[in-house]
Amino acid sequence: MLRRDSRLPWRTGYAEVINAGKSMLNEDQASCEKLFVKKPSGKHRSSPLQEDTGDATGIPLHFWGVYDGHAGSGAAIAASKLLHRLIRDRLGEVAHLLENPASPPPICLAKNGSPYQATESKKGAAAAAAAAQQQGEGAAAEEPDAISDPTIRYHMEKVVSMESLVMGVLENAFRQMDELIEKEKASYTISGGCCALAAVQMLGKLYVANAGDSRAIIIRNDEVIPMSNEFTPESERQRLQYLGFLRPELLGNEFTHMEFPRRIQHSELGKKMLFRDHTMTGWAYRTIVEDDLKFPLIYGEGKKARVMATIGVTRGLGDHDLKVYNSNIHIKPFLSCCPEVKVYDLSENKHGPDDVLVMGTDGLWDVTTDQEVADAVSTFLSGCDPSDPMRYTLAAQDLLMRSRGVLKERGWRLPSDRLGSGDDITVFVIPLAGHEGET
Amino acid sequence: MLRRDSRLPWRTGYAEVINAGKSMLNEDQASCEKLFVKKPSGKHRSSPLQEDTGDATGIPLHFWGVYDGHAGSGAAIAASKLLHRLIRDRLGEVAHLLENPASPPPICLAKNGSPYQATESKKGAAAAAAAAQQQGEGAAAEEPDAISDPTIRYHMEKVVSMESLVMGVLENAFRQMDELIEKEKASYTISGGCCALAAVQMLGKLYVANAGDSRAIIIRNDEVIPMSNEFTPESERQRLQYLGFLRPELLGNEFTHMEFPRRIQHSELGKKMLFRDHTMTGWAYRTIVEDDLKFPLIYGEGKKARVMATIGVTRGLGDHDLKVYNSNIHIKPFLSCCPEVKVYDLSENKHGPDDVLVMGTDGLWDVTTDQEVADAVSTFLSGCDPSDPMRYTLAAQDLLMRSRGVLKERGWRLPSDRLGSGDDITVFVIPLAGHEGET
Repeated sequence: MLRRDSRLPWRTGYAEVINAGKSMLNEDQASCEKLFVKKPSGKHRSSPLQEDTGDATGIPLHFWGVYDGHAGSGAAIAASKLLHRLIRDRLGEVAHLLENPASPPPICLAKNGSPYQATESKKGAAAAAAAAQQQGEGAAAEEPDAISDPTIRYHMEKVVSMESLVMGVLENAFRQMDELIEKEKASYTISGGCCALAAVQMLGKLYVANAGDSRAIIIRNDEVIPMSNEFTPESERQRLQYLGFLRPELLGNEFTHMEFPRRIQHSELGKKMLFRDHTMTGWAYRTIVEDDLKFPLIYGEGKKARVMATIGVTRGLGDHDLKVYNSNIHIKPFLSCCPEVKVYDLSENKHGPDDVLVMGTDGLWDVTTDQEVADAVSTFLSGCDPSDPMRYTLAAQDLLMRSRGVLKERGWRLPSDRLGSGDDITVFVIPLAGHEGET
Repeated sequence: MLRRDSRLPWRTGYAEVINAGKSMLNEDQASCEKLFVKKPSGKHRSSPLQEDTGDATGIPLHFWGVYDGHAGSGAAIAASKLLHRLIRDRLGEVAHLLENPASPPPICLAKNGSPYQATESKKGAAAAAAAAQQQGEGAAAEEPDAISDPTIRYHMEKVVSMESLVMGVLENAFRQMDELIEKEKASYTISGGCCALAAVQMLGKLYVANAGDSRAIIIRNDEVIPMSNEFTPESERQRLQYLGFLRPELLGNEFTHMEFPRRIQHSELGKKMLFRDHTMTGWAYRTIVEDDLKFPLIYGEGKKARVMATIGVTRGLGDHDLKVYNSNIHIKPFLSCCPEVKVYDLSENKHGPDDVLVMGTDGLWDVTTDQEVADAVSTFLSGCDPSDPMRYTLAAQDLLMRSRGVLKERGWRLPSDRLGSGDDITVFVIPLAGHEGET
């Protein structure tokens, strides 16, 4: 939960609303920070998770995080306090490379962090040894020259972009955050888990990392540019089924990795039922055997889809202790803490004051479509003084009210009389040209 | 290899060219067939792979297949003879459902194939038993009503479309074809493997199933609609790395599932090198340990990328005996025979005589881009009499020559003087309005 009494960095607009009576606590959390990426300072390295000292040197970075907790707010709170610091510190380790964004990061670094270049003679010897072991007949049949000539093989060096290095930092920071939650659970009560959606603005680029079912879109000239995909039992069905197929012991003899359109009755043994496995997108009939009577690993549709009848999102942080009720089957191996990262080049595009990044938890998007959000934001901002310091916060509040609706006798209702969202809702509206005139 | 002396069904245009001296044989194969889907006839069921009897009753189906063989043409030849018959026979098993395309296929079938509907009372009992076992606390925290109420859970029945049923037929026919090649290898010499790209026209829809690096695009009003994705070590890196990570024994102690931008030298132990694993799209530095000196599971860039230094495609049929050279490490567990299926609604769109589906092996697309193919086909066909029975074949030949070029002193050259394709090339140009005036 952000403090609402202070102006946020980057003219960020923010709004939140607690769920409509589902629980007493807001399980959503958020953070918005300006940080500075600094090289680690000598031997007396500072604590990796220290608060920013106020020393405004280094590479400036803006961070926005949206955390949608479930089964408690512990993981969401932990992530909202720490994830941006982990990212800052991991970026610090490569700060000397980020300072030269024009030259790609070196493939190999010496222990002191300086680029390491293998000598030519060593190259040849190592390559020959490797090639002698690895030359393949199958390969030769495919493309003889590339495989039998060790110099060709060795001299292959992929060029990795600076952008990919930042993406890797975000990916590994999520992993580190997840490990930290697991470790700290020994000392503190960190309940549940959370979806995490994070945006980082740095060196003219915007990175959006998503693990869960929150969503980010850019609205530019009233046009929608998706900046994330949702990870749910339906969107990740094949990955989860593949894991269940390869590691059936994780299903604890209670679940089947097959999907069926409904539960199977014992009396239906020997009949044919529609199914699909990890290799299929379509459906086919299959003669039902005893094993198919187990509960499906993925079951349900839309917002009601669940992994092992337990959880409705498939990526996020925390959930290390989550088990199938009354069993010893852990859910965690099926959940992933790894985000998908998308990059948007801020410096290559011109942005007006009404071009924004909108980040929101699923409570927003369940009720309001991308295009409706874009239309609402564009209409709202165009009617608002561009110099009004509150314009993005007002736009965020407007969005939020559109998904929550108004409390009537028959519950929270939208203007269309459809039901509003009963979920926690958190929204950021972030101007893409926010750096102009203000930091 | 298709017979070129006969007119092909559906006014199909076809052209092929053998590789420019790489081998004596054309490893590409193709098939173009008109078939009829019939219900299996009573007790004396005919052989599942029988040739079409000429009896033109049943649901008409057009089929086009493109098979790009490697390490021999055996698998490609087998698939070009049999895959369409497997598809026809599998469709035959659901022919009584396909006859009512408006009503979705029943979820459960009795042994005789007729729809089976569980009774209400049984439903309740089975659901209660299942729910008692499966109710989850985590689930309850997520959405208590849906999980604790057995009727809600049980009454969930996914509606499966007729389209999904046909997709499932295609997916399983590929799998069956792959098993057939494995089985028949005991009796016949079936060398190598092949990429398979198949298109099926039936009941107003066009299904395109792809396993490998061939490609299909629709060209409509000069606009390109992609109908397939390529499956290569680069596009499937994360799937393959995930398998290597979960089942390290498949890597035979010779390979690492990690990717590095180049080979690592022994002298670089303890230094930091860029890497990425199955969870990452970006790159990060990692301190090199002994295990990282193994050869990477995925290595190389673009057309030179290989799985285990052996093979450059990751989906297709055959390859059951393919091993890493001089080792006992099988490649097959990493290869998939499962196609990705895309569907295009022919009946919902109006098509002129210049609107076509182009299917081609990688030899075509390596040299000529989608847009270049679209421009070439559109230009060619617009200069061609719409009633010319050879127009699509001439267009296919024109495409093929654009990728092959002309033999000059310095090899096969394109008009731009770039090198032409040295690979086998096979092309279909299929009119989307081909059924009008002819079957």
